[in-house]
Amino acid sequence: MSDKIYRVDMSNLTYKIEDVPADWMGLGGRGLTSTIIAAEVDPECHPLGPNNKMVFAPGLLSGTTAANSGRNSLGTKSPLTGGIKESNVGGTIAGVMAKLGVKALIIEGIPEDDSTFYHVHVTKEKVLIEAVPELVGKNNYFVLDAMEEKYNKKVAVMTIGRPGEMKMLISNISVRDPKGKLRSHGRGGVGAVMGSKKIKCITVDAQNYKEVTYAQPDKFKEASKVFTKALQDNPISGEGLPAFGTNVLINIINEAGGLPSHNFRSGHSENAEEICGETMAEKIKERGGSTTHGCHAGCVIQCSQTYNDKDGNYLTSGFEYEMIWAFGANFGIKDLDQIAKIDALMDDLGVDAIETGVTFGVAVDAEIIKFGDGVEAYRILAEEIANGTPLGRVIGGGAGNLGKLYGLVRVPVVKNQSIPAYEPRAIKGQGITYVTTPMGADHTAGYAVATNILNSGGFVDPLKKDGQVELSRNLQIASAAVDSTGMCIFVAFPALDDPKCLPALIDMINARFGISLDGDDVTNLGSTILKIEHAFNLKAGLGSADDRVPEFMKYEKLPPHDAIWDFTNEEIDEFWNF
Amino acid sequence: MSDKIYRVDMSNLTYKIEDVPADWMGLGGRGLTSTIIAAEVDPECHPLGPNNKMVFAPGLLSGTTAANSGRNSLGTKSPLTGGIKESNVGGTIAGVMAKLGVKALIIEGIPEDDSTFYHVHVTKEKVLIEAVPELVGKNNYFVLDAMEEKYNKKVAVMTIGRPGEMKMLISNISVRDPKGKLRSHGRGGVGAVMGSKKIKCITVDAQNYKEVTYAQPDKFKEASKVFTKALQDNPISGEGLPAFGTNVLINIINEAGGLPSHNFRSGHSENAEEICGETMAEKIKERGGSTTHGCHAGCVIQCSQTYNDKDGNYLTSGFEYEMIWAFGANFGIKDLDQIAKIDALMDDLGVDAIETGVTFGVAVDAEIIKFGDGVEAYRILAEEIANGTPLGRVIGGGAGNLGKLYGLVRVPVVKNQSIPAYEPRAIKGQGITYVTTPMGADHTAGYAVATNILNSGGFVDPLKKDGQVELSRNLQIASAAVDSTGMCIFVAFPALDDPKCLPALIDMINARFGISLDGDDVTNLGSTILKIEHAFNLKAGLGSADDRVPEFMKYEKLPPHDAIWDFTNEEIDEFWNF
Repeated sequence: MSDKIYRVDMSNLTYKIEDVPADWMGLGGRGLTSTIIAAEVDPECHPLGPNNKMVFAPGLLSGTTAANSGRNSLGTKSPLTGGIKESNVGGTIAGVMAKLGVKALIIEGIPEDDSTFYHVHVTKEKVLIEAVPELVGKNNYFVLDAMEEKYNKKVAVMTIGRPGEMKMLISNISVRDPKGKLRSHGRGGVGAVMGSKKIKCITVDAQNYKEVTYAQPDKFKEASKVFTKALQDNPISGEGLPAFGTNVLINIINEAGGLPSHNFRSGHSENAEEICGETMAEKIKERGGSTTHGCHAGCVIQCSQTYNDKDGNYLTSGFEYEMIWAFGANFGIKDLDQIAKIDALMDDLGVDAIETGVTFGVAVDAEIIKFGDGVEAYRILAEEIANGTPLGRVIGGGAGNLGKLYGLVRVPVVKNQSIPAYEPRAIKGQGITYVTTPMGADHTAGYAVATNILNSGGFVDPLKKDGQVELSRNLQIASAAVDSTGMCIFVAFPALDDPKCLPALIDMINARFGISLDGDDVTNLGSTILKIEHAFNLKAGLGSADDRVPEFMKYEKLPPHDAIWDFTNEEIDEFWNF
Repeated sequence: MSDKIYRVDMSNLTYKIEDVPADWMGLGGRGLTSTIIAAEVDPECHPLGPNNKMVFAPGLLSGTTAANSGRNSLGTKSPLTGGIKESNVGGTIAGVMAKLGVKALIIEGIPEDDSTFYHVHVTKEKVLIEAVPELVGKNNYFVLDAMEEKYNKKVAVMTIGRPGEMKMLISNISVRDPKGKLRSHGRGGVGAVMGSKKIKCITVDAQNYKEVTYAQPDKFKEASKVFTKALQDNPISGEGLPAFGTNVLINIINEAGGLPSHNFRSGHSENAEEICGETMAEKIKERGGSTTHGCHAGCVIQCSQTYNDKDGNYLTSGFEYEMIWAFGANFGIKDLDQIAKIDALMDDLGVDAIETGVTFGVAVDAEIIKFGDGVEAYRILAEEIANGTPLGRVIGGGAGNLGKLYGLVRVPVVKNQSIPAYEPRAIKGQGITYVTTPMGADHTAGYAVATNILNSGGFVDPLKKDGQVELSRNLQIASAAVDSTGMCIFVAFPALDDPKCLPALIDMINARFGISLDGDDVTNLGSTILKIEHAFNLKAGLGSADDRVPEFMKYEKLPPHDAIWDFTNEEIDEFWNF
């Protein structure tokens, strides 16, 4: 049976199961979510109003045996940026949806009765929508446990915590990973959109599915083998990430002078030794945790981990570079265990590591909290944010809005979304990605760090302007295509350096569907996606004046390189000429 | 001696007194402030950063004996809207500046040492800039008293209260009126810009000036007589406003079904009887107040008043329709005395009546406060806002930002600025002004209420779309020109209906400067100003997607007429085709 579009209308609690329109047939992941949002959502609508939609779609290779193909895309109009958003996540959801034949799940409308929250359960034949008053006010793990119990673990789960219910702009949509921990559709306040639709959780039947089929099974297997080997042979995806996790980047980026510290006042952190990946790996080994853990089935990189406390008790997992940077370097907590405790709490609340962490950095300038005070940060999360107090709302609105409330000028956001762990002044290619991607400041949209710092795909000097616009454009086109396959962003490393990797990826898609894409088709797909997203944003009111770093980066020098952001507007705007 | 440009650079506490460039010679008020801001301020700059400027300029007729010519313009990039702002005010400042020969006072830069606030004193020959630690943390009347004592009352004063120091987006810049009360450069968070420049107060020497001169004194006198008579003969400016103040509008707009109530849920308020101008005039008479008071010298309308409490003690003045609507109808306080107490407190704090009042209306939806709870609103102002607590910051950021923090969809703002006391759905010409004016929702930018409701300048049915775009455009062009003369907005009433009024106004300008403008010149001036402002906004990132009412007004019917906002985007965007 062919894949279907599952469409849920929350305004009357009904659903339809529709055939896939011919135009959408060849699309998956980001390509599909952005196409549907652009086709069906008024770019001028209020992101939390009845006319916004959420589209969940697995990638083209999700559900297959291809390594690292377990990413699921969510598309919507972001209440944080006001523009289009695609956010993808690992966990079990992509595989389950693909195997069940859910090409996309579209959620539209808002219930008239907003006095409760609903649970949406998707099965092959139908969608159940029922009120779950018993889950209202609960956080993610409570919901996860309740759903796993209800369905005897044969279910994929997506959920929001209390901040999502309260429509806070730092809120995520969390999903279960293979070990029962949480991963998140992050950035852009997507949890608030789910909250606005009064959906507490979405489950997808993981019992009654069939394995996906392959038009050319042998060809698929062969390509898959080449692809897996490319991932394993690459020094970053095959060695660095498995050994130290993403947090291997702390020392690398710090040494490059591009690790934002003290709310983006320096590119160098005095805390690096205490919080780096090497220190973390040591502690994990000492304490009986695990340095390797895959966020979705079929992951051969295993960059996640299990992090225990001093007594060997479980503290957190999915403990990533961005989280550790935001709270450790930028906000200044020296104690990795304290950061881990905050990480676990944030998973349960369902709030975004980057947006929340950067907001705490800005909150230091607002004199709300002292630099490095992890105890108070934990308290604010557990008491103020979880309960939606005025202070909780102030932090829960994200860095850009906090800056507006406190009259601050040094607010590191692009399109109102917090800038991640790479300083745009010192890693300029990454800066071009931040300002031009339709997503708002997003490090995954075109990871120029690869070529600026990691010598992957050649080398472009991070401190010079030359070549950065072209680098970022090529990476963003490639990423938009990769985000449509269900592949994890880290396939970029072998793809940039191993000539066998990308052809193998394309071969897998061809073998899965019995088609014959080539490299140009993939590039065209990426270009088309970017242009669709950019056009949506222009109509939504995000034009070239929004493709900018915060102004202070143009006149404030960043130590240690005394780097400033020196691109002219014309140089940036040139990005869109393709 | 000819007029000069006074330019203060706060980055090094220096000043220059410059000749007026030829291009600026024929400009005053809004025409001059918008021209200077567009010429000298990067539209992409942070409004609270070092590259924004403030320009104060009296109107072309300010300082003359012309009736109602006492308005002073302030131009800046607004931190609330992100676009250009012109805000004009009565009081004594315009006349004093004009007589002293200050064509414009430009403030630029931000002090390196931000540990204190400064006092800027402008005299004919020089500008004094000195730290005033003793005024930091004080509110407006304290500053006013201190300055009047220091200069033996021979001084015009502009000041910010604590919210302005804290750069809150609801903050105004207040100025002394002829009776020692306060008027305000309101809207758009202009107090925050002054706060960002670390200026607590600006004084202008009112002792050593010369009366303005006239190229043709007799012609001026004659035209002035005709103009004054037109103001006095008009039923609105000559009778309604003097008798009941601006608050005469409560009953009129309520009966028209266009008085926003319960956070813009209805066009009709159940509180009208208790808060209307007629009730207010009665109370004033009973309690020994005064129904007439001019906000600047030479005012013949005298729409302001002195409002006493039950015991005959002074409570407030400058007690206007917008304030009484916002707190009485939209937020629901029935007790006029309670609203008056809040008004007096807000004058002292220096916060905007419309922005603050509408924010309290939205705060009801956020469950921060109960509808109509004036005691709690007073407490929040006096304790939370004055002290910059998290709750104070939440309210102090204005309605649009509060809506973002609390995930609200029903947020009545245009370009993030609160919509004033006329419902766009029920008074559609006024709605067109809100969405198209470069100022953000601003009722004075093109007061279509005149022709939609008051039968001034003909009649255009307020509930129909026909003719509204043209009406608003004509009014906005005329208003931009009038805002350049220093004239009060209420000259619009005779100007629309008495064929002798506008020619007399033009004759006064001609006689003052020895020039020969005609009606077309004035229209061209107005058009040019609008286009300069619009071009600035486009570069600042405010495009057609920002020329919109909040989306809920497109699908939520407004009682009693069940009116919706039914303009297409194309119909609105047609506004700029001139």
